[in-house]
Amino acid sequence: MTSLTLSLAEVRALTLRALQDNGMAEAQARSIADIVTRAEADACRSHGLYRVPGYIAALRSGRANGAACPKISQTHASVLKVDADRGFAPFAADFARSQLIETAGRQGIAAMAITNSFHFSALWADLEPLVEAGLVAWCYVVGQCSVAPHGGRQRLMGTNPIGFGWPRAEGAFLFDFATSAAARGEVELKRQAGEPLPEGWGIDRDGAPTTDAAAALEGALLPFGGHKGSALSMMVELIAGPLIGEMSSRRVAELGISDGGPPPGGELFIVLDPTAFGADPRAAGEAFFADALAQPGVRLPAQRRHAARSRSRTEGISVPEALAMEINGLCAG
Amino acid sequence: MTSLTLSLAEVRALTLRALQDNGMAEAQARSIADIVTRAEADACRSHGLYRVPGYIAALRSGRANGAACPKISQTHASVLKVDADRGFAPFAADFARSQLIETAGRQGIAAMAITNSFHFSALWADLEPLVEAGLVAWCYVVGQCSVAPHGGRQRLMGTNPIGFGWPRAEGAFLFDFATSAAARGEVELKRQAGEPLPEGWGIDRDGAPTTDAAAALEGALLPFGGHKGSALSMMVELIAGPLIGEMSSRRVAELGISDGGPPPGGELFIVLDPTAFGADPRAAGEAFFADALAQPGVRLPAQRRHAARSRSRTEGISVPEALAMEINGLCAG
Repeated sequence: MTSLTLSLAEVRALTLRALQDNGMAEAQARSIADIVTRAEADACRSHGLYRVPGYIAALRSGRANGAACPKISQTHASVLKVDADRGFAPFAADFARSQLIETAGRQGIAAMAITNSFHFSALWADLEPLVEAGLVAWCYVVGQCSVAPHGGRQRLMGTNPIGFGWPRAEGAFLFDFATSAAARGEVELKRQAGEPLPEGWGIDRDGAPTTDAAAALEGALLPFGGHKGSALSMMVELIAGPLIGEMSSRRVAELGISDGGPPPGGELFIVLDPTAFGADPRAAGEAFFADALAQPGVRLPAQRRHAARSRSRTEGISVPEALAMEINGLCAG
Repeated sequence: MTSLTLSLAEVRALTLRALQDNGMAEAQARSIADIVTRAEADACRSHGLYRVPGYIAALRSGRANGAACPKISQTHASVLKVDADRGFAPFAADFARSQLIETAGRQGIAAMAITNSFHFSALWADLEPLVEAGLVAWCYVVGQCSVAPHGGRQRLMGTNPIGFGWPRAEGAFLFDFATSAAARGEVELKRQAGEPLPEGWGIDRDGAPTTDAAAALEGALLPFGGHKGSALSMMVELIAGPLIGEMSSRRVAELGISDGGPPPGGELFIVLDPTAFGADPRAAGEAFFADALAQPGVRLPAQRRHAARSRSRTEGISVPEALAMEINGLCAG
């Protein structure tokens, strides 16, 4: 597969042009270009340029609103509700972030729900600006319905990722993972490569364990970690679904969306100011991290991304030529 | 093993007497007797009468304060800090609960840290009164240092349980599990029974995978679910440790406590009022639960406990005679 090397500025410019050429207003396009560029910089390819055609598909089908104007309401002192006006979640998050940070700082803890939106990006990217502002933060999104509950045989939950971040002086402690044993994209890659799945990733249409990727994609994925991961996935389904007025992943699946864009949904943030407990977490967690890193073989969650980021800034990033051409082809010409 | 049948009232009375005879003031003893009785009622034996000798050990050694007077401070509108005055956490939680519920209702979300305490009970029991008040709630405790991080070979984290609850009209959705593959008690039971451990539960002193329970107890337990469970365990270590001014489990282990009672530590609660988002969660989650329960083989987290509770109220509970005698022997006579 032929690849091109692009600078991060080129990634940003290409994304911005493709989105604006498809009718997205500049402010929202800047939010999406930023999150795509940061994913590429961190070698998180599955949330980088690879996603641009999907953003555009949702614009072209008219489901996503390129002219979205998010609105914030605050009925309780520590709770923000952001109606994303059918736009993409990163734009609503950018729009509301300063108010969220201010609220968490004043109240000690705050929750923010983004609704009426499309989420197509990585949770770490949503959390990082909050964590860099010195806050401890969680976020939750309901993923595409594809996961059977522990003990069950049919799809019930989305891949339902969980993100958490803790501030450090250099490079936040940040993780973000699907509560399924593997993300759908990983299973799809195994299918394309003709490789078997590890045991415990999926079941077939009849609910029987399978290591065949195609059979698992037709059947269901399994939660990570047995009944514990299944319980966490249910938690995400509840708090990023009905709690904030959004549908469960199964109801979303019943909409039968097939334009290649992301499903509609929401996102829940919980943000805590550690100074409200008297802690300076940029210092308070360091003894623990030092103990962890003293063990050979132990890596903190964001370490690999931070290393990639340093490289990408100087060396640029590698993009499959076919993907770059596809995105160019989606531009006005 | 000979067993006795006790009514729940007898469990409560025995616990209350044993604690008061060992110098605990009545109000704190009532909190502990309540949480012990509720664990027995729900057939959660590992947190029931089995723990009473440990509570008393910490009183007799002077580490735990039987005359504790918890103090609440609230420097931010949505954050409560409860100094448990070296008492047991359930007493501090009982003491502060109405203020926590009121704060979450007014602000939409609230956090509460209990510090300077001893936690020896189950998280579901801490969460249940909050969830029955209509709130969505999480809690986190740093457990005993016994778990190696993913990729590591030495103990770094506690068993670090996570609890979550969501209100329902009948019987809350409530889970509570260690972020280790198994709780220490389960491994200890395997050792006593001479049974091998499932793969992935533990490593020996040299960091090699082992199915020998004694070797794993000398070495380290492993997180559940690989790097994902390991990341969650690190999160608990941070937010229920240094965030709230408590030590990491490793620092606690260095204290070398060996009186049989619980280690010192804290507890973090995060409590959210779903009505702040416009949701009636007693109704909002029900469509999801109905979808889940329509699948044969799927059980919601607290179902087994609720079934046990119904039985215990009419039939009482079964207690090993040796344990009942041990607790009787700890009473004044």
